Amino acid sequence: MAERGRRGAIPAGPEIERLIQLLARLPGLGPRSARRAALHLIARRAQLMEPLSAALGDVAARVTACSICRNIDTLDPCAICRDPGRDSGLVCVVAQVGDLWALERTASFGGRYHVLGGLLSALAGVGPEDLTIAALADRAASGAVTEIILALSATVEGQTTAHYVADRIRERAGEALRVTQLAHGVPVGGELDYLDDGTLIAALGARRGV
Amino acid sequence: MAERGRRGAIPAGPEIERLIQLLARLPGLGPRSARRAALHLIARRAQLMEPLSAALGDVAARVTACSICRNIDTLDPCAICRDPGRDSGLVCVVAQVGDLWALERTASFGGRYHVLGGLLSALAGVGPEDLTIAALADRAASGAVTEIILALSATVEGQTTAHYVADRIRERAGEALRVTQLAHGVPVGGELDYLDDGTLIAALGARRGV
Repeated sequence: MAERGRRGAIPAGPEIERLIQLLARLPGLGPRSARRAALHLIARRAQLMEPLSAALGDVAARVTACSICRNIDTLDPCAICRDPGRDSGLVCVVAQVGDLWALERTASFGGRYHVLGGLLSALAGVGPEDLTIAALADRAASGAVTEIILALSATVEGQTTAHYVADRIRERAGEALRVTQLAHGVPVGGELDYLDDGTLIAALGARRGV
Repeated sequence: MAERGRRGAIPAGPEIERLIQLLARLPGLGPRSARRAALHLIARRAQLMEPLSAALGDVAARVTACSICRNIDTLDPCAICRDPGRDSGLVCVVAQVGDLWALERTASFGGRYHVLGGLLSALAGVGPEDLTIAALADRAASGAVTEIILALSATVEGQTTAHYVADRIRERAGEALRVTQLAHGVPVGGELDYLDDGTLIAALGARRGV
């Protein structure tokens, strides 16, 4: 048999090849799953492909960062900053919008948020001016805030950022403002035998009466 | 703290929630990875989100099934059926377009294709009239075809379909037409110890001189 075409090419026209290339840039999809996703979409043109195109266009046209907290929404201020039922005195500081979504899924926090936009990182070249730390310090000093909760990852970068942010807040808003951070300890459902030493040491240090 | 909102809801407006719901319907993405994908898209609005919306719209508007082989393309006949360099006498029968793409990636087949649209399945209620078997038998009987290669999965449904299709082709095109199927055997790189009995029996039965 004759050798045909480019090895690895999709034999389906440049539009479909471009769609597969774009789908492969989504997190969680590689080249193989992008091809499967493209075929899945083509087989569901009216039910999925056209609605997804429209939804992407809608969100791209309307999404914006909240001018108060930097959460993303299609309105500014965002739904959380607009909600009169939420406690404006309580501000939870997160690195990314995904962290805010994770906390909101628990439906256990009734305050507001502040999205830093990342974590300080010498390696990645992220300095304080790349994050919304100055805006957070302004909010903290406005008089309306009674507690700042630092909900940052328990990694070196997360904890470095937490210390830096706490210092900047105290400089601007004074020592009286309460600054807290999430408890470290044994994850719910976690088995001691499988936990790392750092978590065990933190859990032991923060032990509570029963 | 007050209990807030629906547990599990995305606090970012109905457009973003709808986008996440649609992304979660792609194969390989669940609710969690759909949220990550949405945030990834929102962070890359001009580079990824808008191009993906446009690419989906383009493909949705232009994609069509080839009237000869049922391959998908943005033109009809498809690129493979239009290609004068390919052997029209050789038709490779596949269940789905994804199988055609897999064969094309090997760049080792110089003939044309016929896409059945699935496999016969009593369980899933797929009968002969749901597949393009009649059109295939017409192509086979047209006089231009010298060999039909059945490239169907080595599963019960694949082999049932292969036998049924071979019978229908022979009825229409006569016994003289060559009908073949992919070889069964040890996958390249496969270790004997890990192979199932069925594959070993097939490989032994189809042994060749060296």
